[in-house]
Amino acid sequence: MSNNMPQLKLVNFSRLHKALADSAQALNEEINRLLPSQEGIGARLIESMRYSSLNGGKRLRPFLVMTAADIFSVSPSCAVNVAAALELLHCYSLVHDDLPSMDNSDLRRGKPSCHVEFDEATAILAGDGLLTYAFEILTHPRTHSDPAVRVELIRRLSQAAGPYGMVGGQMLDIESENKEWSIGAVTRLQRLKTGELFAFACEAGAILGKAPQPIRNALLAYAHDLGLAFQITDDLLDVEASTNDKKHARRLGDEGKPTFVSILGLEKARLQANILADQAISHLDVFDSSADLLRDLARFIVERES
Amino acid sequence: MSNNMPQLKLVNFSRLHKALADSAQALNEEINRLLPSQEGIGARLIESMRYSSLNGGKRLRPFLVMTAADIFSVSPSCAVNVAAALELLHCYSLVHDDLPSMDNSDLRRGKPSCHVEFDEATAILAGDGLLTYAFEILTHPRTHSDPAVRVELIRRLSQAAGPYGMVGGQMLDIESENKEWSIGAVTRLQRLKTGELFAFACEAGAILGKAPQPIRNALLAYAHDLGLAFQITDDLLDVEASTNDKKHARRLGDEGKPTFVSILGLEKARLQANILADQAISHLDVFDSSADLLRDLARFIVERES
Repeated sequence: MSNNMPQLKLVNFSRLHKALADSAQALNEEINRLLPSQEGIGARLIESMRYSSLNGGKRLRPFLVMTAADIFSVSPSCAVNVAAALELLHCYSLVHDDLPSMDNSDLRRGKPSCHVEFDEATAILAGDGLLTYAFEILTHPRTHSDPAVRVELIRRLSQAAGPYGMVGGQMLDIESENKEWSIGAVTRLQRLKTGELFAFACEAGAILGKAPQPIRNALLAYAHDLGLAFQITDDLLDVEASTNDKKHARRLGDEGKPTFVSILGLEKARLQANILADQAISHLDVFDSSADLLRDLARFIVERES
Repeated sequence: MSNNMPQLKLVNFSRLHKALADSAQALNEEINRLLPSQEGIGARLIESMRYSSLNGGKRLRPFLVMTAADIFSVSPSCAVNVAAALELLHCYSLVHDDLPSMDNSDLRRGKPSCHVEFDEATAILAGDGLLTYAFEILTHPRTHSDPAVRVELIRRLSQAAGPYGMVGGQMLDIESENKEWSIGAVTRLQRLKTGELFAFACEAGAILGKAPQPIRNALLAYAHDLGLAFQITDDLLDVEASTNDKKHARRLGDEGKPTFVSILGLEKARLQANILADQAISHLDVFDSSADLLRDLARFIVERES
C-alpha cells in the first residue's frame, strides 16, 4: 500500500526507453505488414488509415500488450499482432475525436489531423475502417492458435471500446462541457475514455498467456491506476504547456471541460498522480522481476515531460 | 441457369410476408434485450443507438440470417443473436452515411436521421457504438457454444464490413461523384457497399450450422446475385419516385453518382435485376424446399414497389 506522500524515486529509465523504442519499431513493422500501401482504386482510404496509425505517438498501449505478454512467455509475433489491433483501434478513436463536430482539433502529434490532411468524409471512414480492421486482426490464427483465446480477446476489447466503455466515455466528455463535475465523475469519465483501453492492453498479455483470473486481476488493477496517473499527468502537462505558451495551446473545444487539474488544483493533482503510480506498482507484487519494465513505466508516466 | 428473358412468375408472397414480419419482430425484441434504455448519465448515447436501430426498415439482412440458419436447424435464439449483431452494424453504416460530410441525408426511413434528431457528434459516436457492440454480441456464448464458430462469424463480418469490404465501398461511392463509371466499376462498388453484408447474412446461417464449404459457397453465390438485384431495384424505385415526385426525391448529394439505371437505362436495368433474381434462385438448387423462403425473397426483391 502507498502512503500519502509521493516518494522520491531514482529510476534509470534507459532500459525502459530502449524497450519502448523496440516495441514501437516492432509495432510499426506489423502495421506496415497488416496495412500495406495500395495503388489505384481504394488507395485513398488505406492511405488515410496509414496516415492516422503510422504517425509516431508514444505507443504506450502496444508496449503494455507486449510487455505483459512477455511475462507469460507469449511469442512476440502473437503479442505484436494484438498490439497492432489495439493501436489501430486507439488511432480510430483519435481520428474521430479530432473531427470538427467533436474536439475540432486541426493537429495531431504535430501534424494535420486526418480530416485536415484528407477530408471529413475520409476521416470518418478511416476511423470506421481502423476500428473494424482491428477486430479482423484478432480473428487471425496468428493472434493465437486457440480460437477460445481469440474470442476472449475480442470480447474484452469490444467491451473496453464500446458504448459501455470508451465510446461511452467520449460521450460523457462531450456532455461534460460547461458543467460542474465532481472528482468522482471525472474519474469515471477518464476510466471509460482512456482507462478501459489501458486495462485491455495489460489484460491481453494475461489472456494470451492463459493466466489464471487472480493474475489477470492484478494486471487490471495496475492498468486502472496507471491509466488515471497517465491522464492526470497529461492534464498537468497541458496546463504547463498553455501557461508557458511554448507548445501548441490546449485544443479548441477543450475549454470548460473538467480535468483533474481544474478540480484538484496543480499540487493535489501532482500528488495524486504519484500516489496512483505507487499504487499501480504495488499491484505487481505478485510478479517477480519479469514485471520490472511495467514498474519502471508507472514511474516514467508521472515523471515524463511531454 | 437463367435464360436472357425475365420469366413471368406468379408467386404468392403471403408466406414470405408472414416470415418477414415474424423475423422482424424477433429481431426487435432481441435488440431491445441487448440494448435496453438507460437512465441518467450515458443515457443519451444508448438512446441514439436505439433510435437508429429500432426504426423500422425492411430487416432483410436479419431475415436472411435467420432463414438461412433455419435450413441447418440452428436454434432460433442463436440465429437472432447473429441477426441483431448484423443489423446493428448495418444501422451504424446508415448513421455514418447520412452525416453532413457524407451523403448529408436529413431523413432516414421517413424520420429525422440520427444527426438531425440528436447532433453530429452523438451520431458519430452512436455509429461507433453500434459497430463495436455488434462484435461484442458475436463473442457471447449465446451466439454459439463453440468459440471457433464465434470467431469465424467475427472474421467474416469484419472482412465484409471493413476497409476491403463495405467501408471501402462507401469510399468508392464518395469518389465516384461526377466521374464516368463503367458498369463493371459500379457492380464492384455495389458488391462492396451492400453485397458484402448480404453475403455475410446468408453465409452466417451456414457457419452457425457448420455446413461444408460447397454449401457455404452456394449461399454466397445466391447472396451476391440477390444483393445486386436488390440494388438495381432500389435504383429503379429511386428513379420512379423522383419522376412521379410522390415520395421523397433522391437524397441530397446523390446527384452525379453513377447508378445501374444511369448507365444501363431503365429497361435494361429492369431486365438485369430479373436475370439476377433467377440466377440467385438457381444457386439454391442444392437445397430442398427448406430454402423456399429464400427463393420467394429473390422474386420479391425485384417485384417490390417500395
